[in-house]
Amino acid sequence: MIKKIDHIGIAVSNLEEAIKIYESLGLKVAETGEAKDQKVRVAMIPVGESKIELLEATSPDSVIAKFIEKRGEGIHHIAINVENIEEALKKAKDAGIKPIDEKPRIGAGGKKIAFLHPKSLKGVLLELVEG
Amino acid sequence: MIKKIDHIGIAVSNLEEAIKIYESLGLKVAETGEAKDQKVRVAMIPVGESKIELLEATSPDSVIAKFIEKRGEGIHHIAINVENIEEALKKAKDAGIKPIDEKPRIGAGGKKIAFLHPKSLKGVLLELVEG
Repeated sequence: MIKKIDHIGIAVSNLEEAIKIYESLGLKVAETGEAKDQKVRVAMIPVGESKIELLEATSPDSVIAKFIEKRGEGIHHIAINVENIEEALKKAKDAGIKPIDEKPRIGAGGKKIAFLHPKSLKGVLLELVEG
Repeated sequence: MIKKIDHIGIAVSNLEEAIKIYESLGLKVAETGEAKDQKVRVAMIPVGESKIELLEATSPDSVIAKFIEKRGEGIHHIAINVENIEEALKKAKDAGIKPIDEKPRIGAGGKKIAFLHPKSLKGVLLELVEG
């Protein structure tokens, strides 16, 4: 079962600059950190029950660096909260949606996550997050 | 004050196909309609307190048709709920964020809306929605 939008990931080239802009709208960063395996620095900005996740690459071979090179800064992915990620992933696969992660893996926040392929979802990179 | 993510707008080339895919994930369309001034057909899919808004162009000169022509299908904009749109728009302008709509206008759902320019927001087309 899908519970809510967990976060919206936004690829930016300069995290501090991006934070400044979003905070000028009245939002507030709750948490910053680094996901070394993903080669990104992250700032989480709560908006209601969801978050905006600003992502800056720490290396040119990070997926975020490649995304910006190809498409420019902007919205990178949507993450939705599911009750049971194995079930959600199976449901997606059964419906013919191509997963990027065949099995759930542990994401930056310690939660089980899995990405689904944008080719199967009308250009939307969708992340499933459990819990 | 920003209250929540109102919706995420997704540009698709075939609304029925897109609905089928998102419903296969366990989501459910709550409402469909047409915004004639925007030249789009719309399907709203609730996800927690927010919605996914699927957008199909009804004319080649619709902004959605132009977006798809340039970038392909995918996430088009984020809309956030604000308590007072005049106030939010002023705050954004004061911070140097360029508005697309100098003044709030009435959107498809009868609510006051205003778009902010992606050039000012790290590539993100942001819609303010009041109430």
